[in-house]
Amino acid sequence: MREFILRARKARTDFFNINDLVGAGMMNLVARCISNALFISDNVRKDTIIHVILEGPKYPPKIISFIGEDIKNFPFDEKGIARFILKALKKGKNLRANQEINVVDGVTISKKSFESLIKEKKEKEKQLIYLHPKGKNIGDIKIKKDVVFVFGDYIGMPKKTEKFLDNMGALKVNIAPLTLFASHCIIIVHNELDKFGYSSLNTE
Amino acid sequence: MREFILRARKARTDFFNINDLVGAGMMNLVARCISNALFISDNVRKDTIIHVILEGPKYPPKIISFIGEDIKNFPFDEKGIARFILKALKKGKNLRANQEINVVDGVTISKKSFESLIKEKKEKEKQLIYLHPKGKNIGDIKIKKDVVFVFGDYIGMPKKTEKFLDNMGALKVNIAPLTLFASHCIIIVHNELDKFGYSSLNTE
Repeated sequence: MREFILRARKARTDFFNINDLVGAGMMNLVARCISNALFISDNVRKDTIIHVILEGPKYPPKIISFIGEDIKNFPFDEKGIARFILKALKKGKNLRANQEINVVDGVTISKKSFESLIKEKKEKEKQLIYLHPKGKNIGDIKIKKDVVFVFGDYIGMPKKTEKFLDNMGALKVNIAPLTLFASHCIIIVHNELDKFGYSSLNTE
Repeated sequence: MREFILRARKARTDFFNINDLVGAGMMNLVARCISNALFISDNVRKDTIIHVILEGPKYPPKIISFIGEDIKNFPFDEKGIARFILKALKKGKNLRANQEINVVDGVTISKKSFESLIKEKKEKEKQLIYLHPKGKNIGDIKIKKDVVFVFGDYIGMPKKTEKFLDNMGALKVNIAPLTLFASHCIIIVHNELDKFGYSSLNTE
């Protein structure tokens, strides 16, 4: 199972305007990450989940999870995906702390923090990885089949978060000479894992 | 100079609805390719040009070119980029065959075919490459600094086009085990060239 965790620190958690994704705390970037995590040409990466943590106003934090295996008739354009984010935010407006509910097939929303989610993954003994220019080259490390990649958004990862991830035992990995968008990194990570021979198209 | 050529066989050439990019012949995919070709986090790939050939109804073919070095205040979200495509189509509605005009800084439109553009690139002795599952691994070939990558859209490249490209001396290259979107391929190609040490951020 490939999992991606995207921390979007400015992405709004209230009911944004579907025709202004940039104004909704760069929700277009969030949508693009979801699209790139789940879809390839003519297929869905069933063995993939992406969790987006929205931390912008007014009701943060909210985690929306998109489960490749379960999504049905799901769009892959920014606006189409943003509609599902909005639907999730509406349905999850009054969630209690740590409560999780289903939005539609393959989409859930919970009121949970980034740190809680990472701790859960650590407890499940998933391999945690985050990207860092000083990390080891992705070709030089042993990536496990059950892996969780953690990304910051366009603002980047705060030092405090890096320290937290280090404490959780996360590996630093480098995949590119330049600083790319999280949505670009997801594509490169997927392709590297595909080259290792791990299939993300089918669950076992 | 890195150049990308995207042939979008269904993308509309009349005045599409900016709020329905999917309905405009998957204009969202075209916009995403443009975004991925020109932008990284906090920077523009100045030494990059992407040409999109729109072949959908009603006024095909139209080639819109986006020049990294010259664009100014250019958006990188699908809808924002689509606005420039629409602007170009409006300005270029009545172009004569092979006529090219400026739309805004860094954006031109011409009434020219895919084949004419490829021939021009060949005459300028650019290295032509297209992606193919049976191509050589990108790590195993000598890529020149002046290179042109040619992509089909979501419908794929017709056999006739492959034959035409072979006749033009284009190299077949493989970058991924799975069939990815053109927009994903652009990211992987860029990253491979970045790893070779070619800079796309500055022109010489």
